[in-house]
Amino acid sequence: VIGDATVMDLHGAELAQQLRPLARAVTLIPFPPGEAHKTRATKEQIEDRLLEEKLDRQGCIVALGGGISLDMAGFVAATYMRGVACVNLPTSLLAQVDACIGGKTGLNTERGKNLIGAVHQPDLVLVDPHYLDTLPRAQWACGLAEMVKHAMVADEDLLGWIEAHAGELVGPPYRSDHHPLLRCARIKAEIVQQDELETGRRRLLNYGHTVGHALELASGHSLDHGRSVALGMLVEGRVATTLTSFSVDELERLRRCLARLDLPTRPPSELPFDALLPYLALDKKRQGGSLRMALPVRVGAMAAAHDTFAVTVPLEQARQAWQDEAAS
Amino acid sequence: VIGDATVMDLHGAELAQQLRPLARAVTLIPFPPGEAHKTRATKEQIEDRLLEEKLDRQGCIVALGGGISLDMAGFVAATYMRGVACVNLPTSLLAQVDACIGGKTGLNTERGKNLIGAVHQPDLVLVDPHYLDTLPRAQWACGLAEMVKHAMVADEDLLGWIEAHAGELVGPPYRSDHHPLLRCARIKAEIVQQDELETGRRRLLNYGHTVGHALELASGHSLDHGRSVALGMLVEGRVATTLTSFSVDELERLRRCLARLDLPTRPPSELPFDALLPYLALDKKRQGGSLRMALPVRVGAMAAAHDTFAVTVPLEQARQAWQDEAAS
Repeated sequence: VIGDATVMDLHGAELAQQLRPLARAVTLIPFPPGEAHKTRATKEQIEDRLLEEKLDRQGCIVALGGGISLDMAGFVAATYMRGVACVNLPTSLLAQVDACIGGKTGLNTERGKNLIGAVHQPDLVLVDPHYLDTLPRAQWACGLAEMVKHAMVADEDLLGWIEAHAGELVGPPYRSDHHPLLRCARIKAEIVQQDELETGRRRLLNYGHTVGHALELASGHSLDHGRSVALGMLVEGRVATTLTSFSVDELERLRRCLARLDLPTRPPSELPFDALLPYLALDKKRQGGSLRMALPVRVGAMAAAHDTFAVTVPLEQARQAWQDEAAS
Repeated sequence: VIGDATVMDLHGAELAQQLRPLARAVTLIPFPPGEAHKTRATKEQIEDRLLEEKLDRQGCIVALGGGISLDMAGFVAATYMRGVACVNLPTSLLAQVDACIGGKTGLNTERGKNLIGAVHQPDLVLVDPHYLDTLPRAQWACGLAEMVKHAMVADEDLLGWIEAHAGELVGPPYRSDHHPLLRCARIKAEIVQQDELETGRRRLLNYGHTVGHALELASGHSLDHGRSVALGMLVEGRVATTLTSFSVDELERLRRCLARLDLPTRPPSELPFDALLPYLALDKKRQGGSLRMALPVRVGAMAAAHDTFAVTVPLEQARQAWQDEAAS
């Protein structure tokens, strides 16, 4: 069982007890929490520990925790003895609705995030909402933003359901009679099955992330991933109103939904668009530069853009959308 | 272009010149030669260099060299930005007939060889016999042993061809009107396509390697991989004469062929079977212990053993075969 020390302290002992009847041996291998420890050095320490414990090719790695734990444990599983079985046990709402499915793993280097990694599908994903009971409320919102994204890219009914249940969804606990976790899992799994290596359709999951990722970095992480993606969806949605059939009414519907989930609805006024520039993957072939974005055509459907699911957006148009949103 | 410093000194400049018209930029990244440097630390240095050179997802890694270079460069390609394109340019006979195909990559740790790695198929394999002109004669024999193995497991005609041309094959240069490289590539590719992750049929390529691998380690590498595999094929062939329809006549045919290729035909008398024990993957469930071996049923065909291609061999039977061979 590999996970960061925070989650291991919370759930490790209970999980080990549950697993012992099923396994010859169960070993808990915690690593220091935080992106700063999602490194090749940490991976090497975990590998040496696995070799010491004599885990062989028939062994199984259980990834316990949020996105960082799943990234680390999944990548260890991908390369230990050229790949061993892996079970994902996501404990955060973000990991449960998104990161636990799709097989992307990755580590950070000094030059950036997730630069070294693999696509290695888990053999089993077990989404157990009881883990959410201990989730800090600040992390809850991250998961809600990705849940809204799943609805926006693939499932208008899910957006309707989120709108109708926003009052209960806005914070923990997760109500076991709710089913959006299952719907999010199905949406993600269906897309990943069609395009595992992200050469086409999987890119639609990047909705909100072109701007969102840059915003997260430009804010020095004072805006977390979920809040950044929420704002990214609005700015990119604004771009869509000028480039696709996506309507201003639909954009306002998205904004109302985010508001009811306590997610931000307006870019921070102190952050000019230019602050994002160092973090945007700018294509300089076009005069003034351009970006690639996954854009909605309506709630629940994305622009195929000749099966690339990446629309070319002139930088000036992105800037205008940012300013329109900041003034909205 | 990633390869060890020895091969980079020999071929790097020429290759870079050939590649420059085809690429935006070509960078040679040598690493220190030898198994001792096939480590995670070396991989990390190469990755940092690639990041420094700003290789992106559209980049391509060219693996230049023998098995060690291909293992290292292939594994770097498998995990750089979650996988980039890879071209294998094998320069040793062993790498050309065997290691360049199949996608197995791996690094050593203090606890053993190839413990961390991935199965990552190259996008192109380019076998150019002109690289063999600079191959030391001692390394030539390694390739011949694997060539004979390919014939033994899958292609009796190839064995006939090797027998007929042994006088020319026994040392460099490789004659360009010869075609066994292509036949070996086809054999290996066909088997790997059927069973990429070695859950069944690919295991037949282990013929000679259960005993051979242990022998290589027990001899402290004074017997190299090729010579160890040659002897492994004889000992395991001897086992086969008692467990399958493989005949003593066929075993003697194999021995004559190895002799004509200047490969050893008898286990070293100073090495008792027990010296191999620490290096054999012994299954202790059975009284006295047992091993798993890929065994021939005749020249060119292997025992399927219920599609596992791994026959259970009591340890005592392996010991007897070793002694029979030592006395042969």
